[in-house]
Amino acid sequence: MQAPTPPLGTLFAIGGAEAKLRRRTVLEAFVAAAGGSDARIAVVSSASSLGVEVVEVYRGVFTSLGAREVISLRPESRTQAQDPDLVEPLGKVSAIFLTGGNQLKLSSLITGTPFGEAIQEAYQRGTLVGGTSAGASILAEHMIAFGAGGSTPKQRMSQLSAGLGLLRGIMIDQHFEQRNRYGRLLSLVAQSPSLLGLGVDEDTAAVIHDGSRLSVVGRGAVTVVDGQHLISNAFAAKRTTPLLMSGAVIHILPAGSQFDQTADPDPEVLEARAAEAELRKPGS
Amino acid sequence: MQAPTPPLGTLFAIGGAEAKLRRRTVLEAFVAAAGGSDARIAVVSSASSLGVEVVEVYRGVFTSLGAREVISLRPESRTQAQDPDLVEPLGKVSAIFLTGGNQLKLSSLITGTPFGEAIQEAYQRGTLVGGTSAGASILAEHMIAFGAGGSTPKQRMSQLSAGLGLLRGIMIDQHFEQRNRYGRLLSLVAQSPSLLGLGVDEDTAAVIHDGSRLSVVGRGAVTVVDGQHLISNAFAAKRTTPLLMSGAVIHILPAGSQFDQTADPDPEVLEARAAEAELRKPGS
Repeated sequence: MQAPTPPLGTLFAIGGAEAKLRRRTVLEAFVAAAGGSDARIAVVSSASSLGVEVVEVYRGVFTSLGAREVISLRPESRTQAQDPDLVEPLGKVSAIFLTGGNQLKLSSLITGTPFGEAIQEAYQRGTLVGGTSAGASILAEHMIAFGAGGSTPKQRMSQLSAGLGLLRGIMIDQHFEQRNRYGRLLSLVAQSPSLLGLGVDEDTAAVIHDGSRLSVVGRGAVTVVDGQHLISNAFAAKRTTPLLMSGAVIHILPAGSQFDQTADPDPEVLEARAAEAELRKPGS
Repeated sequence: MQAPTPPLGTLFAIGGAEAKLRRRTVLEAFVAAAGGSDARIAVVSSASSLGVEVVEVYRGVFTSLGAREVISLRPESRTQAQDPDLVEPLGKVSAIFLTGGNQLKLSSLITGTPFGEAIQEAYQRGTLVGGTSAGASILAEHMIAFGAGGSTPKQRMSQLSAGLGLLRGIMIDQHFEQRNRYGRLLSLVAQSPSLLGLGVDEDTAAVIHDGSRLSVVGRGAVTVVDGQHLISNAFAAKRTTPLLMSGAVIHILPAGSQFDQTADPDPEVLEARAAEAELRKPGS
């Protein structure tokens, strides 16, 4: 969230396993943000080992949700990621969607190539960019590459790599609730407290507007870990021992809630704002 | 932590599955606190369906760690919990140990009986009281009775019952890391932000001195959830939806660290104190 020029696009960071048959809230919102019946969506499936099949699944869903056109772009090497036939179509779509799979495949094959740069440029021009699971993690400058499950943060539990860099100042973790990833996200915040940690549940999207405002769509929640005032022993803890972390601030944001990191330096105001959207609804 | 008279005893809240064969750090510390070679320990196994067997296991461990005497006390009904033959021995031991099992069995059979009151009185006189798993949860005034796993707090995810009341102002959850209990602890803090939530990992003990100072022993960590400044929709969220929670403060305390809730109202000072023990160690 310290991008040199404010980006104009919207990002959908989806926590994986988004519904594709019924109650397709997340993908419906994605197609709507892509332009609805004007939507032209490029599906990038490089992370997946099931290239053709996964593209056909998303082609079916996006088309049935009203998108005009779905194209497949699947660079499978850094050489292919320089191929103008794969790069140029990225400039002509209204949305880019990165499938799940292995995010290290995305960072290995795409980050720093003309294909990766074309995604960045499209985003800067206002093109919608979304990704699910691996495709969500890669959106950040600092990408969560892999790690172990478990609630308690431990030294050497997880690793970062260089992602696509559409989001700065934020790390994105996915399958957050379902794979018990508190520990790995906390351990990364302990080592890099300047970065906000985002844990996105399955069938849920963190929607980031203009690189700073976050809203939530879908069945689960987005957990924000703020280490700004954290005291930890991340620089000293040995091997795989539990980390000492004191003062991490947690925000849990279900569908309909909003969070604006840049709006106001006063944490109480921020918190109140985050809560407002939901609290205004009448109780049951 | 708002006990009317400051208790003099020490509590061991163990997160379950404490090592019994090798590296018995937690039970070693318990026997030492019970008086070492002078230790006379009452094992209360009412929570367990394996009464005799579980007592024999702890008798073996405590004896091999140097305890002088281990007695078994197993009320199996509220009537038995009034039996002087079971109640009176609680006044003559240096430590009381509550085994794991089903904490609702403990709250149903013991809370509010002469047996339960004798444990409270022993604690107030300085007798060491410890429990593992169910035996840890029951120590609190507000006992976590049961709940679902998962990282994201949801409405109606967990339930409280009336525990033994040795600890006030604190809820104790156990198997915290291993059973992915962030969500259930957070959901309870959302509904009762006046209570501090303690999540104790397996083979780990939260040791509470004089009802206020906490230190940590064992292989894992103790996670403290402080909802003092929390904004949530716990009073309005519907059915089993994820809760909105903004501003929960988390402290993760591995072995060797300390936490003192009552020492100072300034959170930064508290955090620094919590961190101090570990940070003073030289880096590796």
